[in-house]
Amino acid sequence: MSTNPASKNRQGTTRRRLLLSGGAAGVGVLGTLSAQQLFAPSSAAETRTPLNGEEYIPFFGDHQAGITTAPQAHALFVALTLAPDTDGAGLKRMLRLISDDAARLTQGQPALADTEPELAQNPARLTITFGVSRKAVQLAGKQPPKWLQELPAFSIDRLEKRYSGGDIFIQFASDDPLIVAHASRMILKDARRFASISWSQRGFRRAHGSVAAGTTMRNLFGQVDGTSNPQPSDPDFDALVWEPQGWLRNGSSVVVRKISMDLDKWDELDRSGREQSVGRFLSNGAPLTSSPNDPAAEFEVPNFETTTAGGLKVIPEFSHVARSRSAVPGERILRRSYNYDDAATGSEVSNAGLIFISYQADVDRQYVPLQRRLDELDLLNQWTTPIGSAVFAILPGCHEGGFVGETLFG
Amino acid sequence: MSTNPASKNRQGTTRRRLLLSGGAAGVGVLGTLSAQQLFAPSSAAETRTPLNGEEYIPFFGDHQAGITTAPQAHALFVALTLAPDTDGAGLKRMLRLISDDAARLTQGQPALADTEPELAQNPARLTITFGVSRKAVQLAGKQPPKWLQELPAFSIDRLEKRYSGGDIFIQFASDDPLIVAHASRMILKDARRFASISWSQRGFRRAHGSVAAGTTMRNLFGQVDGTSNPQPSDPDFDALVWEPQGWLRNGSSVVVRKISMDLDKWDELDRSGREQSVGRFLSNGAPLTSSPNDPAAEFEVPNFETTTAGGLKVIPEFSHVARSRSAVPGERILRRSYNYDDAATGSEVSNAGLIFISYQADVDRQYVPLQRRLDELDLLNQWTTPIGSAVFAILPGCHEGGFVGETLFG
Repeated sequence: MSTNPASKNRQGTTRRRLLLSGGAAGVGVLGTLSAQQLFAPSSAAETRTPLNGEEYIPFFGDHQAGITTAPQAHALFVALTLAPDTDGAGLKRMLRLISDDAARLTQGQPALADTEPELAQNPARLTITFGVSRKAVQLAGKQPPKWLQELPAFSIDRLEKRYSGGDIFIQFASDDPLIVAHASRMILKDARRFASISWSQRGFRRAHGSVAAGTTMRNLFGQVDGTSNPQPSDPDFDALVWEPQGWLRNGSSVVVRKISMDLDKWDELDRSGREQSVGRFLSNGAPLTSSPNDPAAEFEVPNFETTTAGGLKVIPEFSHVARSRSAVPGERILRRSYNYDDAATGSEVSNAGLIFISYQADVDRQYVPLQRRLDELDLLNQWTTPIGSAVFAILPGCHEGGFVGETLFG
Repeated sequence: MSTNPASKNRQGTTRRRLLLSGGAAGVGVLGTLSAQQLFAPSSAAETRTPLNGEEYIPFFGDHQAGITTAPQAHALFVALTLAPDTDGAGLKRMLRLISDDAARLTQGQPALADTEPELAQNPARLTITFGVSRKAVQLAGKQPPKWLQELPAFSIDRLEKRYSGGDIFIQFASDDPLIVAHASRMILKDARRFASISWSQRGFRRAHGSVAAGTTMRNLFGQVDGTSNPQPSDPDFDALVWEPQGWLRNGSSVVVRKISMDLDKWDELDRSGREQSVGRFLSNGAPLTSSPNDPAAEFEVPNFETTTAGGLKVIPEFSHVARSRSAVPGERILRRSYNYDDAATGSEVSNAGLIFISYQADVDRQYVPLQRRLDELDLLNQWTTPIGSAVFAILPGCHEGGFVGETLFG
């Protein structure tokens, strides 16, 4: 986590915190609370090792946080449906309000009129990221990008309305689940006048500090998941992730797919069968053409030409890694997925899967061709079923004094 | 967390790990995996700072782990209903099987025939704690304690069957949510032949390392929750928590209550009103007769006699702290509760509350009188509703070669 340049410890943001505090922390329900009361435990703490909770991700910037931020352990994804009487002006009021909440909460400050101000402290890298649907863009009087619509129907989809669609997208992510609970409540309370919850999905990765920083996550199939992500240092990264022009300049898009994973059926497969279906070793995530014992081999490039003595491809042509790989470099996406493990009932042992999240500049150019290939043929499809789907435009970032969504109204 | 004497780092358990490894890691689905492959990342790690994930809680002992263990960040509570054809012998087979799973998983070892062995690594203080119902005890041919039954009906209860009852209780707790997901799946798979899931509830506290070790948790009302817990160093601790004799010797009991918290209604109350209803300051959890500014004041004893200039009690007589306090020292309980924050839908903003968990030697002697007082009168009842309830006998611990539950069959 310390390798993430966007992450700052308390020291680095003291000035911003004081500014925000002067502007707001003394008003509203906090009337009788001094800043000393609210922040006593933290201000006494400068002499010791900072806690995980004291890591802050800046809210303001050209891009929104929570996209290139190293993924936090916990995330809550929420889609809102705009109320029938919410017009463009209402949408603007709502975005201004919840953007202000996010600016405070991500810096460990209570939201305006925060009823549980103590739960805002130690935000543990909280980021809050906003997106909008075609309908919301049109409500604001702007031209939606062509790709801002439902994905084409894929044959593998078994989509349920309760996990699909929506007008406003909010991604809450923090290394601390209590922070996610409080931040989401504060923002959903402020949004309630304008919109209701369409769906919400809760996901997790390994805990902060549980495994070495930079370790690629594993999904509940035990697979290393997300190895070949574009890196911010890649020369084409900006073109892959950020919209270059118009009101969405410096924004992006998100594809959210709830993918049910049939763990029972997966467990019937032997280890080699699993590795063949993915094209990677389970031990270290390395392609089957590399070594299963070398941790660094995870990042080696798969060799799709290598054959066995018997003349078979070492990495099966229908494996997930072979099918998802594109010859076109511009077709890559930035994945930021989370596991889910919802309550199982009765004879069920698991109700689990992946909240697939990808960020990309253009859904039609980058995500759709990839998904078409996987839909057509991917060994993994035997154990996975998409049950939810949504696409949103991810708004550009904003600077102090502005709000996320302001370019919709410029 | 480092203050917990039961917690050991990797170094401290190397011998046990190797023993277990020699006994099991080379068989089953792991056939082709060398120990080196499985544990390569960890064995290379001895020279660096241990990760949170590398903290292990011993499984074997007179008492089960997960009771006096400093509460982990994540917990999953599961109740199973025994299948109609599961007899005493079947119950014994099941307990032996899942106890063996727990012995391995808590030490970061895959369960026997673990299909995702990599997900067992870095258990992050995983504990797995087992309990049984009256019916299960009778099935084993033993005499259940008198208190092992449904709680008496309380007037505030609005119990739902989907959160109540059950024959077998399992508490999974770890600082890492992925570990909880994997451990629960492994054990529920092994239990499936004998029982089905009656209910499961997922809870959280602040993340490991997010706030200073030993900080009392806050619930979603923002209250410091669990201050006056008995401590293992208290002279009467053993008498409060452990059963002294018979087949349940060194065992305990658990009360599990799912308590819905009406956050919306709570938010309508001003800060002073909230503090009056609890009898403690929200800032630091100190009784209203102590200072709201001194972090150490949380642990000061409330003075129920102090009055204001106007002659009113400073701590209202109907406040939660006044009503829950007993004059009888033996009526105390060991609380180990977790927050829950389930998916909200529609105009709802929260579906949240507390998974109240208490351990005590005797439910009738310790828990019931306290709950009767709170049922009769507790200002907090206006914002909280018990919607689930269950009681289980917590089995004694076991030693290497034995299994949790063995005294049921001795």
